[in-house]
Amino acid sequence: MLKAINGDVAQEILRTTSSDPRLLAKRLAACSAADAIEVLNTFDARHAAAVIEHLSPEAGVQAFNNPGLVWPWKIIEQLPHERSAAILAGVHPDRRAEIYRNLSDDCASLLDDHLSPAVKASLEQILKYPRHSAGAIMTTDFVSVPTTATVEDALQQVRKVGGTTEQVYAIYLLAPDTRQLKQIVSLRQLILADPKAAVTSIAAPRTPVAVPPLADREDVARLISVYDLLAIPVIDDDHHMLGIVTVDDVIDAIVHETTEDVQKLGGMEALDQPYMRIGFLPMIRKRAGWLCALFLSEMLTASAMQHFQGELEKAVVLTLFIPLIMSSGGNSGSQATSLIIRALALREVRLRDWFKVVAREVPAGLLLGAILGVIGIARISLWQHFHIFDYGPHWQLVAATVGAALVGIVMFGSVVGSMLPFILKRLGFDPASASAPFVATLVDVTGLVIYFSVAFVFLRGTLL
Amino acid sequence: MLKAINGDVAQEILRTTSSDPRLLAKRLAACSAADAIEVLNTFDARHAAAVIEHLSPEAGVQAFNNPGLVWPWKIIEQLPHERSAAILAGVHPDRRAEIYRNLSDDCASLLDDHLSPAVKASLEQILKYPRHSAGAIMTTDFVSVPTTATVEDALQQVRKVGGTTEQVYAIYLLAPDTRQLKQIVSLRQLILADPKAAVTSIAAPRTPVAVPPLADREDVARLISVYDLLAIPVIDDDHHMLGIVTVDDVIDAIVHETTEDVQKLGGMEALDQPYMRIGFLPMIRKRAGWLCALFLSEMLTASAMQHFQGELEKAVVLTLFIPLIMSSGGNSGSQATSLIIRALALREVRLRDWFKVVAREVPAGLLLGAILGVIGIARISLWQHFHIFDYGPHWQLVAATVGAALVGIVMFGSVVGSMLPFILKRLGFDPASASAPFVATLVDVTGLVIYFSVAFVFLRGTLL
Repeated sequence: MLKAINGDVAQEILRTTSSDPRLLAKRLAACSAADAIEVLNTFDARHAAAVIEHLSPEAGVQAFNNPGLVWPWKIIEQLPHERSAAILAGVHPDRRAEIYRNLSDDCASLLDDHLSPAVKASLEQILKYPRHSAGAIMTTDFVSVPTTATVEDALQQVRKVGGTTEQVYAIYLLAPDTRQLKQIVSLRQLILADPKAAVTSIAAPRTPVAVPPLADREDVARLISVYDLLAIPVIDDDHHMLGIVTVDDVIDAIVHETTEDVQKLGGMEALDQPYMRIGFLPMIRKRAGWLCALFLSEMLTASAMQHFQGELEKAVVLTLFIPLIMSSGGNSGSQATSLIIRALALREVRLRDWFKVVAREVPAGLLLGAILGVIGIARISLWQHFHIFDYGPHWQLVAATVGAALVGIVMFGSVVGSMLPFILKRLGFDPASASAPFVATLVDVTGLVIYFSVAFVFLRGTLL
Repeated sequence: MLKAINGDVAQEILRTTSSDPRLLAKRLAACSAADAIEVLNTFDARHAAAVIEHLSPEAGVQAFNNPGLVWPWKIIEQLPHERSAAILAGVHPDRRAEIYRNLSDDCASLLDDHLSPAVKASLEQILKYPRHSAGAIMTTDFVSVPTTATVEDALQQVRKVGGTTEQVYAIYLLAPDTRQLKQIVSLRQLILADPKAAVTSIAAPRTPVAVPPLADREDVARLISVYDLLAIPVIDDDHHMLGIVTVDDVIDAIVHETTEDVQKLGGMEALDQPYMRIGFLPMIRKRAGWLCALFLSEMLTASAMQHFQGELEKAVVLTLFIPLIMSSGGNSGSQATSLIIRALALREVRLRDWFKVVAREVPAGLLLGAILGVIGIARISLWQHFHIFDYGPHWQLVAATVGAALVGIVMFGSVVGSMLPFILKRLGFDPASASAPFVATLVDVTGLVIYFSVAFVFLRGTLL
């Protein structure tokens, strides 16, 4: 349920306006950017482009600046080249780079002829950084003044560039000669200060927190959150400012990152697109890859079972508990994995802490396994006692086997589940790729081996 | 790896300063708030309180205002009451409420005597709202001017309250008589405008986006992100402003929400505390609950197996594929669940779309099942052909059973996995409680029934 007081404007427009692009453009121009975007998002790219053609140049740029507009590059591809180039020139540099990065090669090269050298230069400055890096999501527009400026000078500068610059609430103080970043002053501080004071006298005296352009967007998000910033400067090795990453980019980054993590946790590749919009076959591809990989690994369970076929034929009663025991290993592993994935993401745990985690998970696994083991033994005893099912003359030994195997398997699951994210991170992969299905598959084969080994110890001479 | 340019100040302080609270307080006063917090977080509550006692009153308040300080309430409990009351009076209202909410009852009632009526009133205004609601995370401090004010009046008001108010970049315009919220103007707009202009002439003419105090923090986060705001007003039914939720609270809310969701997806209760800090037994409690519930449900697999014991004894070869087939159902279900959980969270899919999702998941499940089925049949045929294992004289029928069962089980898993979040949401639970282990457990019993039913069709008269 949408809880915004004014959240249903978009629905109302869609209900009451015909699909004529000219009329729609008129309605959209009168409502807030977010509502206009919600309406545009319901159209296909061709229809959205037709409506945008009827918007004023400024309104068009505003729509493309909104991060809520999905697939802006598809709309750009449908617009006349002059209009596309004008929109690209008008949007914020970070958004421009995001759109350009996703254009088809044909469209990008056609547009190149219509872009000014300044726009091209700003594009190149961002596009050279890898996706998901600070450099790739930064905007190259920001407010800066020399450290020699007064408060009044800085306010003048804000007034001068404030109409087009995305973020004016942090003003960056650069050394007049080298243009290195020295300090940061907030617009709030400027407003509260004496206009004649030197900007350096009101800024915090320490070197500002900044990130290199190759920093991961997740780290940037964490720093912005920890230091409570509205933007973080991106600087090169010589402390020259390349741009800033703003708090709204960071929220988008966190939301995307969460979606990717949850999808990976579910045991699949991240979709990149909303569930209802992605094509059927692309979705199958994203899901089939991991599903097949897990299936092929899980085939080892068939091999393990084949290995124990002799025991299985002698004691069919053992097969009854295989699903129960294996799923417990997988479940405990899945718990441990999800705990460690988040702890690593939030930097509560670092790579070097892996042994501390093992030292926690071994006793935790033993205790959890013992709890399940007791329940398992109770269940077998009760069923036997009340004649619900007959587990044979050696039912006590079968119950002991199930109980002991559960302790071992849950402990093993907890340790494997907690170590998998560490191993993936150490190898340079995303620890969030350690999904519940991945862990379950790792644990299943060993779980079978543990179960049959325990059975061999307890049941040798009787059933086996 | 921390990528901040100045990220290791805290480590350096810890390495070079003795644990004398007076010396530590001196070092902390000289570094940034975030670094000071990182140092304080490494101490237990008693030691942190001792250090804070030696900080200036302002620096103490600043430390408690920082959302990075974990367990501020535990530190408050260790400080002298006068100091605690002064800090509570000094911090932002939202932080004050968060701390007060977590104090022990004894400490809270002792502190009550030291708090001014104004502070108590602001506390009550926030504490009456449930956790995770907009009302509970809002701050009651904000900048407002009557709609009759000029730009210069508004700037004066910012200068007047800007020293203590958390967020001054949005200024709220209230009707002079009713004090209802009418419009919002940004500090940027004020700076760029003619000082003599009326504030209403530069503010956007439409009614601002706002939320009621009972809105869920997740919805608030989504609105702030969609509308690209630095703060969102919280208003009552009569459009009177109760407070604002700021973007930094929202980032914290998103990060917490993500951690909870990932932990629930792993099949456990959310921990509420960092993995390395939560006590061993509280952690076991959070994990054992779901683990036992899943174990008890999974016992149905043992019952199902018992039901098919006759078939199992006749055809032990069928048992070899039980783990493989059951895990495939669980894995496909886990994929579908994680897709739908995120799609619901991002409002890409709504409750009423459940049938559209079924209509996508049935063909997706059939296709994915067919892919796995072909791999399964190929595996059995190859092993048989190259004499790696002998599946008996009816191996073709066994292979057909495995292949057909996979199609049915993967399809069933995909549908159950995608519907579980809808059902939970419809019943008023968090859809993210639909974990991979939960889905696997649901699918396992039915998976066994499907497998043995298919086997009965294919193998009747031969093996069964």
